Amino acid sequence: MLREAILHESGGAYAYPVSEDTLLIQLRTAKDGMTKVYVFYGDRYTWPEVLQHTSMEKYASDQLFDYYRIQIQVTTRKFRYLFLLDDGKERIWYNEFGFHSSQPSGYYSGYFQYPYIAPDDYFAVPDWVQDAVVYEIFPERFCNGNLANDPEKVKSWGELPQDQMDFYGGDLAGIIEKLPYIEDLGVNTIYLTPIFHAATSHKYDTTDYFLIDPHFGNNELFRNLVQECHARGIRVVLDAVFNHCGYDFPQFQDVLARGTESSYVDWFYIHDFPVTSEPITYEAFAEVAWRLPKLNLSNSEVREYLLQVAEYWVREYDIDGWRLDVANEIPQTFWREFRQRVRAIKDDLYIIGETWHHSGTYLQGDQFDAVMNYPFREAVIYFFGKRTLSVDAFDERLTWNRVTYRQQAVQAAWNLLDSHDTDRMLTCFAGNKAAFRLAIMFQMTYLGIPFVYYGDEIGLEGDQDPDCRRCMPWDEKDWDQDLLQYYRKLIKVYRESSVLRRGEYQTIYKDEATKIFAYKRFTETEQVVVVLNNSIDDQKMIIELTEYGFAPESPVAELISGQEFKTEAGVLTIDIGQMEGVILTQVE
Amino acid sequence: MLREAILHESGGAYAYPVSEDTLLIQLRTAKDGMTKVYVFYGDRYTWPEVLQHTSMEKYASDQLFDYYRIQIQVTTRKFRYLFLLDDGKERIWYNEFGFHSSQPSGYYSGYFQYPYIAPDDYFAVPDWVQDAVVYEIFPERFCNGNLANDPEKVKSWGELPQDQMDFYGGDLAGIIEKLPYIEDLGVNTIYLTPIFHAATSHKYDTTDYFLIDPHFGNNELFRNLVQECHARGIRVVLDAVFNHCGYDFPQFQDVLARGTESSYVDWFYIHDFPVTSEPITYEAFAEVAWRLPKLNLSNSEVREYLLQVAEYWVREYDIDGWRLDVANEIPQTFWREFRQRVRAIKDDLYIIGETWHHSGTYLQGDQFDAVMNYPFREAVIYFFGKRTLSVDAFDERLTWNRVTYRQQAVQAAWNLLDSHDTDRMLTCFAGNKAAFRLAIMFQMTYLGIPFVYYGDEIGLEGDQDPDCRRCMPWDEKDWDQDLLQYYRKLIKVYRESSVLRRGEYQTIYKDEATKIFAYKRFTETEQVVVVLNNSIDDQKMIIELTEYGFAPESPVAELISGQEFKTEAGVLTIDIGQMEGVILTQVE
Repeated sequence: MLREAILHESGGAYAYPVSEDTLLIQLRTAKDGMTKVYVFYGDRYTWPEVLQHTSMEKYASDQLFDYYRIQIQVTTRKFRYLFLLDDGKERIWYNEFGFHSSQPSGYYSGYFQYPYIAPDDYFAVPDWVQDAVVYEIFPERFCNGNLANDPEKVKSWGELPQDQMDFYGGDLAGIIEKLPYIEDLGVNTIYLTPIFHAATSHKYDTTDYFLIDPHFGNNELFRNLVQECHARGIRVVLDAVFNHCGYDFPQFQDVLARGTESSYVDWFYIHDFPVTSEPITYEAFAEVAWRLPKLNLSNSEVREYLLQVAEYWVREYDIDGWRLDVANEIPQTFWREFRQRVRAIKDDLYIIGETWHHSGTYLQGDQFDAVMNYPFREAVIYFFGKRTLSVDAFDERLTWNRVTYRQQAVQAAWNLLDSHDTDRMLTCFAGNKAAFRLAIMFQMTYLGIPFVYYGDEIGLEGDQDPDCRRCMPWDEKDWDQDLLQYYRKLIKVYRESSVLRRGEYQTIYKDEATKIFAYKRFTETEQVVVVLNNSIDDQKMIIELTEYGFAPESPVAELISGQEFKTEAGVLTIDIGQMEGVILTQVE
Repeated sequence: MLREAILHESGGAYAYPVSEDTLLIQLRTAKDGMTKVYVFYGDRYTWPEVLQHTSMEKYASDQLFDYYRIQIQVTTRKFRYLFLLDDGKERIWYNEFGFHSSQPSGYYSGYFQYPYIAPDDYFAVPDWVQDAVVYEIFPERFCNGNLANDPEKVKSWGELPQDQMDFYGGDLAGIIEKLPYIEDLGVNTIYLTPIFHAATSHKYDTTDYFLIDPHFGNNELFRNLVQECHARGIRVVLDAVFNHCGYDFPQFQDVLARGTESSYVDWFYIHDFPVTSEPITYEAFAEVAWRLPKLNLSNSEVREYLLQVAEYWVREYDIDGWRLDVANEIPQTFWREFRQRVRAIKDDLYIIGETWHHSGTYLQGDQFDAVMNYPFREAVIYFFGKRTLSVDAFDERLTWNRVTYRQQAVQAAWNLLDSHDTDRMLTCFAGNKAAFRLAIMFQMTYLGIPFVYYGDEIGLEGDQDPDCRRCMPWDEKDWDQDLLQYYRKLIKVYRESSVLRRGEYQTIYKDEATKIFAYKRFTETEQVVVVLNNSIDDQKMIIELTEYGFAPESPVAELISGQEFKTEAGVLTIDIGQMEGVILTQVE
C-alpha cells in the first residue's frame, strides 16, 4: 500500500458540514491503489466498539490519486472517525497518528474528529446562486444610453481603446436600455465593474464610494436600474474596490496637501514625506500604480468607512452581491466582518472574491462564497484553444479544482472564459470559433456558475487590456448571429435543467487518441451526459448506455439540436463532428 | 521521484508569516527522496524571470516523509513561489497545478501565492508565554486556607475522593498561603480550574459567572490573589467554561420553572417540554451530563453575556489568560469575537483551548494561541511508560505535532503529562519513578510550555477522575523530596536557559537497540543537547561533538548535575544510567 499517497485532514476540503448534522468526508489514496475504503464513525463520546461503518465511493481521480467521498450523519453533530483501507493485499487502519495494522484501542487516541457542527460556522451559499448565469458588463463600453452625461472628449463608439483614459460614453441608461437584450440572452445576473465616481474609464480608482459616476448617471438612476433588473428577475452584483482608492479620493488628496498634518495620514501607507507619486512615496496597488493608493485596512476608521459603503449599497439600493476586487490583499479579519455586516442586511447576498490562485483560506464559510475561477479559464484555454493540455491533464486540472475546495464554493464559483482583466477567449484562440463554441458548451454544462463577458456572445474580439474593453457593437450586422443563437440556446438549456444547475459532476470517459471527453451531471433521479469531441476529426461514438448511467432501452435526445436517437441493444451509436459536442438526456 | 509524497499548500502549517514580511514555507517530500530542494520566489507582480531562489533545509522526518523548511522575505509582503525538486535523477518543477519538467511560463499560471501578509491576520502569541512554566491547580483540593468558608460537609483532608460532590475545603486563601511554595517550585504561571460559583467540587457547572464560589472565597480575595501572584511574577490563567452552564444557573432554572414562557428558552437547546433531566429533554455536555446544559452560542444574547464574562475578569481582575473548556464544541465565530474583545482589553492575554485532537483550524491566528497538547502526553505515555512506542514512532509523533501546526502554536502549547481530566502519569506508569523522571526531563527540554499538574512534583498518585483530584498533602513527610528537588532543578534549568525556552528543536540521534533518543535545542548562537536513555541498561555514548553541533575542542557540562566532561579529539564519552538523561551544553 502506498502510504505516502494517503491524505486526510479534518477540515478544509477534506471534512466539512453539508447540512446541520452531516459531514462530507474526503480521503485521498494512490490511484487505483485500493479495492475498498471504509470509514468508521460515531458520536465523539461513544466507545470504539459502537462505531458504525460504511464504504466510501471513488469521487474523482487524477494522474496520481483517487479521491473517495462519503457523507456521514451523526445526530449529535459531534464526530469521531477513522478509516480502514483495503488494497486487496493488506488492511490498514488510518487515523490522525498514522497507520495501524489493527484497530487502535483507547478512548481518545488519534481519532480524526470534527468535534461539532456549529450552525454559526456552517458554510451557507445563497440558494439563488446555484441558478445564476452571470453577464459581466464594463459600463463605459456597453451602451451609451444618454449622450448628455458623456465625458468631455469621447472617442467614436467602436474605435479601438488605447488607454484607460479613453472614454466612449457608456452609462447606466445604456444598460437599462439594453435590459431586454440581456434578458433575451437568458442571463439572470449582471455583474458591473465599478460604477462609483472615479477618473478613469475602468473606475477602479474610486473618488467617491457613495456616488454613481456622473458620466454613468446618478444614484437615482442606479436605483431604477436595480428595480428594472429585479422586475425582470435579474440580480445585480457590484464591484467592491476596497484594496485601494483613486488618486483623487479626497482623503488622499488631503494627505497630499497637508502631509503629516492631515487627519487621514493613517488611512494610507505613506513611506516618506512629502507624499509624491514620482518617485512614489506611498504603497499602491501592485507597487507602481500611483493612481491607486493602497488603503490601510488595519485602521479601524478606514474599515468602518468601507463597511458602511458595503452596507449602504445593499441597504439603500438593494443590490444582490458584491464582487471583491483584489480580495486577497485585504485582511481576512476585514472580510469576516464584511460578511457579517452585509449578510445582516440581506441574508442571501452573494460574496465572490477576485483571486487568481488557489484560495481555500477564504472559502471556509466565514469570508467569501466563492472566487472567480481563473484556473478554470486556464484549463479551458490550454485544452480547447492552445491545445497543449492532454485530455487527462485537462481532467486533472478540473479534479484539482473540485477536490481542493468545499462543494459549496465549487458550485458557486464564477466559471469564466474571460473578463475585463484578460484577453477575450476568441482572440486567445486566434479566432478559432469551433474551439470557442466547444469551450462555451463545456462552460455551460460543467459544475459552477456560467459567466459571460459582454460581447463574447456576439463574437467581439479583444486582446489584453485595454483591447478587451472594446465598445459593444449594437449594429446587428456586426454580430455573429450563429454564435449568439448558440449562446442563447445553451443558456436556455442550462437554465431549464436543474441537473445542469445543481447536479453533481463525474467524468465518465476520456480518450487521448480521439480527444473525446465525456462527463455526466446527475442527481438521484436525473442525469445529463455531455460528450465533447476536442479533435479535428469527426468521431463515431459507441456508447454502452449502462456504462454512462442510462437505462439500456429508452431512446436518447440531444438537448441543443433536439434530435432524438434510437438505441439498439443497449447501445447508442452517435456521430460527433470535429470540435463539436452533444448534451444527451434520456427520453422517458 | 515519488510524486505522491510531495505536499505543499499555501496556508495552514505549510505557508504562514513569521514576521511582517517573512513567510515560513514547508514542503513535504518522500523520506530520503531528494538531494536538493529549492524554492523560487518573488513579489507576486514580478515576472518569472526575476524570481530569486534559495535551497530549503530538511527540518524533520518521520517514517514516510521529509519536511523541508525555509523562511523567505519579500519586502512588499506579496508572495508568489514554486519549487524545484532534485532527486539526483530528475529535476521537477512543482506548483499549484502539479509537476512540470520545465519551468512553467506565463504570468499567472499555477504559482503558489501567499498574496499579502496583512498585519491584522498575523498570528501573534504573547511574548511572555514562551517563558512560562505552568502549574495547574484544582482549587478544591490544593489547600484549605480558610476553614470558615468550607462547605457544610467536608471530608477529612487526604481521604480519597469518590465523587464530584465530595468536598474538602480547598480555597483561594489556601492558594495565596502556598504562593511561596509555588514560587519556590519555580513555576511562573498558574492555571486554576473553574473558581466561579457552582455546585460541584470541579465547578464546571457554573451557577454565576461573575461570582467567586463562596467556598473558595470572594471576588475581593481573588483580586488579592492576582495581585499577590503578579507581585511574585506569577501570571494567572482562568478556565472559561462557556460550552455549558450548571443545572443551577438561574437562566436554566427559569426555563425549568416556566417552560416556553421563560425569556431564556433560547439560551439552551430544549428538545421537548416540559424540560426534565430524566429523561433528559435538553442538549447537555456529552449528551448525558444532565447537570451541564449546553448553552446556545448561536443566540446573540448568550454570546454577548459570555463575552462580557470574559471581559469582566480581564478588565476588573487583571487575569493573564483564559483556558477554553470544551473549546471545540463552540462556534469558531464566537472564538474570533472572543479574541478580539479580550485582546482589546489586554493585548498580551493568553488564549489556550482544550482540545484532544488535531486542531489546526483554531490555530491560524484568529482564535486560540495554542491548545493543550494531549497528543504530546499520549506519545510520552507510550514511549517512556507503557513502552509500546519505538524510538522512531515516538519521534514521528513529535514530528507530526511540529509539522502540522504553525510554530507559534507549537511554542505556546501546554505540554502536559497529565491534568484533572486524566490519570496521573506516575500512576499511569504503575509507579515507575525512573520512567516518570525521564518523562519530566523530556517535558522540560522539549519545544513548548512545560505544564505541571499540582502534586505531581511531590509524587502524588491518582487514577482517572475523581482519583486524580486528590488532596495535596502538606505534610512534607508525605513528599518525595528527591522528586521535588528534581522538578525544582529542571524548572530552574529551563527558566535560566533562553535556548530551552525559545530555541528551535531538532532530533539528532535515535537508536532502537539502545533506546537512546537525543535532540538539540538551538539558536544561532547557542545550543543544548539532551540525550535520553530510555532503556533498562546503562549506556556508554560516544558523541562526535561536531555531529551534535558542538565545537570539537571545548569541554561539555551537564546542566542538572553540574558535572563537567573533558572531550578528547573531538569526542565526548559519557555514561548514561538506565532510564536517565543528560542535558549537555558546551563550556566556553
